[in-house]
Amino acid sequence: MKINHLAVVVHSVEDALLFWRDALGLPFNGIEEVPEEAVKVGFLDANGVHIELLEPTTDDSGVAKFLDKRGPGMHHLCLEVDDLEHAMASLKANGMQLIYEEPRVRDNGRRYTFVHPKSTGGVMIELYEADEA
Amino acid sequence: MKINHLAVVVHSVEDALLFWRDALGLPFNGIEEVPEEAVKVGFLDANGVHIELLEPTTDDSGVAKFLDKRGPGMHHLCLEVDDLEHAMASLKANGMQLIYEEPRVRDNGRRYTFVHPKSTGGVMIELYEADEA
Repeated sequence: MKINHLAVVVHSVEDALLFWRDALGLPFNGIEEVPEEAVKVGFLDANGVHIELLEPTTDDSGVAKFLDKRGPGMHHLCLEVDDLEHAMASLKANGMQLIYEEPRVRDNGRRYTFVHPKSTGGVMIELYEADEA
Repeated sequence: MKINHLAVVVHSVEDALLFWRDALGLPFNGIEEVPEEAVKVGFLDANGVHIELLEPTTDDSGVAKFLDKRGPGMHHLCLEVDDLEHAMASLKANGMQLIYEEPRVRDNGRRYTFVHPKSTGGVMIELYEADEA
């Protein structure tokens, strides 16, 4: 199991890049608009772990509400798993609360779910299947 | 530059281990008391990135205050740098706010500082010199 990415919610990707890209000097892999999640994402890399800076592009998305309620900061940590069903079964057997009880599928075919922060000690965790099903 | 660890503040290391160690199955490297920082720390590993679960052991430490104010969750992200002075100079030149303006030294001789969340988009960042000075 490895960390795929850390997602950080920010007011402005451009402003946050002044730290992550310019001052810290992390490799920068561009900005993408993701309309279906209503975010603009800045991608950086720290030795194989991606850092994603998420800026909401509407006022009513999940990310926008997170920013309103909690302010900027860590949104979730994404871990790659080999077998999502196996991981989900282990979590359920241990009484952990999943946000999606069944795997969801992204446009690129990758399957994922999220574990509720209540079950993890306050950090939302994305589980992401490393190989396509 | 690589990620050394993620630190997560929790109410109870034992409870959080039910998720990270038991349900998720991450390799567990034990629990340590760190009296000088008034925390008990649970150590896990995700493919070379350490995950540290911090439980305050007094009511008045920085970590205890964080937990009171923000609730459990991500405390900081630690990045290894080769040359701390160089990294700090670059951050200052870019107007970033350091919590310690001069490197601090741990008992083991390792040098570090922190960057204020205001400068990073909401995430406290520890910079940690990979080789002893």
